[in-house]
Amino acid sequence: MGIESGLFDPQRVAVVGATERDGAVGRAVMENLVDDFDGEVVPVNPNTDSVFGRRSRDRVGETDADLAVVVVPAPEAVDVVAAAGDAGIKNVVVISAGFSETGSEGTAREEALVEAADRHGINVVGPNCLGILSTPTGLNATFSPRNARPGNISFMSQSGALVTAVLDWAADRGIGFNDVVSLGNKAVLDETDFVDTWGEDDDTDVVLGYLEDIQNGASFVDAAATATESTPVAVLKSGRTDAGAQAASSHTGAVTGSEVAYEAAFEKAGVLPVASTEELFDVGAMLAGQPLPDTDATAVVTNAGGPGVMAADAVGEATLALASLSGTTRDRLREVLPDAASARNPVDVIGDADAERFADALDVVLEDEGVGSAVVIACPTAVLEFEELADVLASVRRRREEPIAVCLMAGSESDAAREHLAAADIPTYFDPSRAVRGLDGLARYRAVRQHDRGEPTDFDVDRERARNILASVEDRPDNRLGIEAMGLLDAYGIPTLDSEIVESPAAASDAAAAIDGDVVMKIVSPDILHKTDIGGVEVGVAAAEAADIYETLVARARTRQPDARILGVQVQAMADTDAGVETIVGATRDPQFGPLVVFGLGGIFVEVLEDTTATLAPLSEQEAEAMLDDIDAAPLLRGARGRDPVDEAAVVETIQRLSQLVSDFPAILELDINPLVATPDGVAAVDIQLTVDPATL
Amino acid sequence: MGIESGLFDPQRVAVVGATERDGAVGRAVMENLVDDFDGEVVPVNPNTDSVFGRRSRDRVGETDADLAVVVVPAPEAVDVVAAAGDAGIKNVVVISAGFSETGSEGTAREEALVEAADRHGINVVGPNCLGILSTPTGLNATFSPRNARPGNISFMSQSGALVTAVLDWAADRGIGFNDVVSLGNKAVLDETDFVDTWGEDDDTDVVLGYLEDIQNGASFVDAAATATESTPVAVLKSGRTDAGAQAASSHTGAVTGSEVAYEAAFEKAGVLPVASTEELFDVGAMLAGQPLPDTDATAVVTNAGGPGVMAADAVGEATLALASLSGTTRDRLREVLPDAASARNPVDVIGDADAERFADALDVVLEDEGVGSAVVIACPTAVLEFEELADVLASVRRRREEPIAVCLMAGSESDAAREHLAAADIPTYFDPSRAVRGLDGLARYRAVRQHDRGEPTDFDVDRERARNILASVEDRPDNRLGIEAMGLLDAYGIPTLDSEIVESPAAASDAAAAIDGDVVMKIVSPDILHKTDIGGVEVGVAAAEAADIYETLVARARTRQPDARILGVQVQAMADTDAGVETIVGATRDPQFGPLVVFGLGGIFVEVLEDTTATLAPLSEQEAEAMLDDIDAAPLLRGARGRDPVDEAAVVETIQRLSQLVSDFPAILELDINPLVATPDGVAAVDIQLTVDPATL
Repeated sequence: MGIESGLFDPQRVAVVGATERDGAVGRAVMENLVDDFDGEVVPVNPNTDSVFGRRSRDRVGETDADLAVVVVPAPEAVDVVAAAGDAGIKNVVVISAGFSETGSEGTAREEALVEAADRHGINVVGPNCLGILSTPTGLNATFSPRNARPGNISFMSQSGALVTAVLDWAADRGIGFNDVVSLGNKAVLDETDFVDTWGEDDDTDVVLGYLEDIQNGASFVDAAATATESTPVAVLKSGRTDAGAQAASSHTGAVTGSEVAYEAAFEKAGVLPVASTEELFDVGAMLAGQPLPDTDATAVVTNAGGPGVMAADAVGEATLALASLSGTTRDRLREVLPDAASARNPVDVIGDADAERFADALDVVLEDEGVGSAVVIACPTAVLEFEELADVLASVRRRREEPIAVCLMAGSESDAAREHLAAADIPTYFDPSRAVRGLDGLARYRAVRQHDRGEPTDFDVDRERARNILASVEDRPDNRLGIEAMGLLDAYGIPTLDSEIVESPAAASDAAAAIDGDVVMKIVSPDILHKTDIGGVEVGVAAAEAADIYETLVARARTRQPDARILGVQVQAMADTDAGVETIVGATRDPQFGPLVVFGLGGIFVEVLEDTTATLAPLSEQEAEAMLDDIDAAPLLRGARGRDPVDEAAVVETIQRLSQLVSDFPAILELDINPLVATPDGVAAVDIQLTVDPATL
Repeated sequence: MGIESGLFDPQRVAVVGATERDGAVGRAVMENLVDDFDGEVVPVNPNTDSVFGRRSRDRVGETDADLAVVVVPAPEAVDVVAAAGDAGIKNVVVISAGFSETGSEGTAREEALVEAADRHGINVVGPNCLGILSTPTGLNATFSPRNARPGNISFMSQSGALVTAVLDWAADRGIGFNDVVSLGNKAVLDETDFVDTWGEDDDTDVVLGYLEDIQNGASFVDAAATATESTPVAVLKSGRTDAGAQAASSHTGAVTGSEVAYEAAFEKAGVLPVASTEELFDVGAMLAGQPLPDTDATAVVTNAGGPGVMAADAVGEATLALASLSGTTRDRLREVLPDAASARNPVDVIGDADAERFADALDVVLEDEGVGSAVVIACPTAVLEFEELADVLASVRRRREEPIAVCLMAGSESDAAREHLAAADIPTYFDPSRAVRGLDGLARYRAVRQHDRGEPTDFDVDRERARNILASVEDRPDNRLGIEAMGLLDAYGIPTLDSEIVESPAAASDAAAAIDGDVVMKIVSPDILHKTDIGGVEVGVAAAEAADIYETLVARARTRQPDARILGVQVQAMADTDAGVETIVGATRDPQFGPLVVFGLGGIFVEVLEDTTATLAPLSEQEAEAMLDDIDAAPLLRGARGRDPVDEAAVVETIQRLSQLVSDFPAILELDINPLVATPDGVAAVDIQLTVDPATL
């Protein structure tokens, strides 16, 4: 849903529950609006004539406002929303608490609020939130005692307290905001709406978010993928670790998707994940003030060797890379630097450098075509004036296209310089690793912009056959299918080992004879999960033995698990495991984000080493290729230690076809092809397990 | 080497090169000493009568000082050190640059300086350094315009600029120092001396270091292992990543050990590695001010849910764990908290909490026996006074034994509260993840203190036999030995597969007949590195075929690599790879730290997945066991997926015996047992490769 204009740039704001009473939220909101808002502020309070000199109305319907801010107790708030709707007010911020965060009564109240909002087509922020801010009009419709410094970052937070915490702290660091939203319970408007709106907003250059969950995963991914084509989006998602997820679920009670699904969603949407509040704003400040680099190679210019090495260490862990300076650049550096200085990267301008020498060296390295950005590190010395340095760096920044991150490794004596640089949109840091992390935000977003995700291929498949096979799950009390459903893969063009399920010794004999070489025979029963445990698998069976082995397998199953329904025996070609690599291709369905395709090493290594990667379906050829690159064991597929490389294209196509299968059938809750044997000549699925929800078929 | 008393607490300090000339280092040092030093300051300068009102001497020998600070040009500095020695001065700080950092002439000068120092038994700090500070006596023998705030942290830095950078910044954060040393070129005194000295210093409670290399690895590990029994040591080692290591080596020119060796050395010595300047002081400040927790379980007390989840996330990535509160604790929390608050961990005291409610909740959770520490998070609200909160937290800290970390999520409005808390030795942070990182420093050091490393076992081995086998390398131009050296393992009690090297078809036949089951036959030649590539290996050979296969293997080798010297053919039992797991046990020799024992999965997985771990030799049984725990694939050894667990004790003993072997013979530069097959019944080495330096045998 797009957000009606007027939420962030109203002409008249009604404050429902306005008061002058000390300590009241309605007073705090009024004070904030009266102090700074460019438009009109209309108090609504039937028990008083005026609030802060402004005539009070009895009802929201009398205000002629285009934004209503609601601070009355929760039971009344629902009626206020309905009344606002009747009066044609399209934007309402419900600050009041006492909704779904408080139990079943509150949840019913929130449902009534959503119903009223839907009926009138109203955008509601909250309830249970701090409010919203927008600096261009001076709108501070919050009860926070702090206001935002103007800027080009728009920030949404699922924690109201974090908004209060950040405003002042960010202002101290020269970080300003365009719009700020406390999302509250996200009853109507949520993260997707704001990503959508800010992605198209000319005044927002960066979107930052703190989120504890995402409500509609697929919509969010779509909206964010569009937004990040032009506007960087960085999100701190809490509940990343098990401890955090446990804390988050007891805090919000939200059904959150798995962390793997969030990572896959952010990757697909081009959203930059960050791990802490500091990282959110370290990265956000760089994205807000600086152009994107042309290349990941960066140069470090420092007046002290040690901190230069620290920066190089951080570069080694980042998307950035340490640039190799050209011969010309090194010659030119030698011209502007004393003999004792280093003309290699990190460029050490040494301890007696003044601001001009910094600027000269910086100009020379940025002139190098192989250098896309620079990290400038200044330690206090007898000759260096931090303010002078700030001025020359700001001037370099104005003259040139390349982004720079600045480390002032000093205490309060560098405060004035920091302000100068902030005014020139150059963020400053103390720690070299944080400066690199900030700059790396630009490199990471550059990768997002350059990444061509491609479109999913539409393979020609036999959907009807697949549906029929899936429908056979209706006979199964546990909703599971096994090797008897291999035809599903065939229907979607995924190669399977030659195999047949037979129901008699004679048929087993015929089936084995039709297959080249020895065969594997396995009992087929929905009730036998671990076939090997009951002697239900025989490998290396010659065609002549197949009839006997059929009898043996069935007899064993009857003896050891008398209740098991036996569907027959599978006769399958032997996989060429010597030349091949066992992989797993599977899918799960995340409650928030839908089908998630998983790829990794198969067999015992999947379980023990967890060397797998996941991508949201539907996925493109490029995304399937990226999954191969993403596993640690990729070299095993590509011919490590003199082995022949496997047929990568066949693996990639299998991943894509599986993606199409699980996208076509939401009824498939889980599916594993394990192993999918990959050889130089192609791939073959050996076994399959899936869980199907017959109700959604 | 211990440091003579007097370096940090001299009575009289001579400044050789003292002057009043503007901008001179000799003036800056004089000013710092005159301003703050409790003892006497004696300028040495033959060209003037007095400096800052103090009578100047012509020579250092006339000063009767117990510490000399040298700022004269490098060529004169060597003579000054010698003269100081003649005058009985035992401590000299050489600030002057122009030594090994400048090329061959400077290196020669530094050698002369070391020679003079050794001759007179003088402790020299530097050369090419910023100087030293010690706050108890007000000694500031540096040219830094900043001084240190007094405290209980002693700090050494291989970067002088970092000292200047940190002093002011740390003081702003309430972090104080006892001693500070700029290590410079470390010609005489190095990190080992200071770890040693500060480990025994009552005024030093924490040792922090910034190091670019460690000069004598073994001595450092010994000294640090002793120091960390009583005093925490945290080190920021730069050059951690490839990019950083490259930058470091061009910066210092030092031969640095491998990063893996540094990690192993820090682990062995109980040194806490940190990754950035901020982390060094986040962790250092907690260690300096707070007691160690009794348990890793921590409680979070917050007035805002979101930041509580952030803290829980960080706990999930740390040594700390989120405590489960007892029923009693939850009941007591309900008594002191309003209904809407959460009595689970994180404990949400909610937005209307005042300082007293924070204190009450904190007292209750710290009373829980399962809680060892707490993270307190305060966001700005209308009712919370930060200074009041600071006072009640300081009071809880005074009353109780448990450490607390405090997050004040606000800007400058919390500055006064931060100062109050710093005065009570409670560090404050803005970001919850940094507060947790600081607190985790205590948990990490607690683990160091609790860790019983054990002593290496002295196995009964046949050292003479091993020496003879190693000596056979003298015939090899490439210094390498292969399967013909399997007897080396036998000499050290490491089980090997039954095998024999034979030199005729008949002998091959006899050898195969003596082995149970089929055998593997491999050509043995020091010149054939990849035996399989020339068809030099046959597996599954029956005894009857052994003579023929002997001829075949030799013929293939002669045809395909005519120059190769052929030592014979190895006839070896087949490894039980079905029941077993291929592991690798090996060793390398690090230039700084000596032999490093490596353990991991064997075969192709070692190369591709790099799932290995390394420990410095000699190692104990406990350390060998920890290596098993440390690899990701450990569950494969312990019976993943219904397999029988392998004989772990045999693997552990093999690691220890290999450790003894490489410790006994420094001539072994590299050794790999790959694979060592581990089965439920024991282990067996299948193949070996080693490189031996005959010169050191």
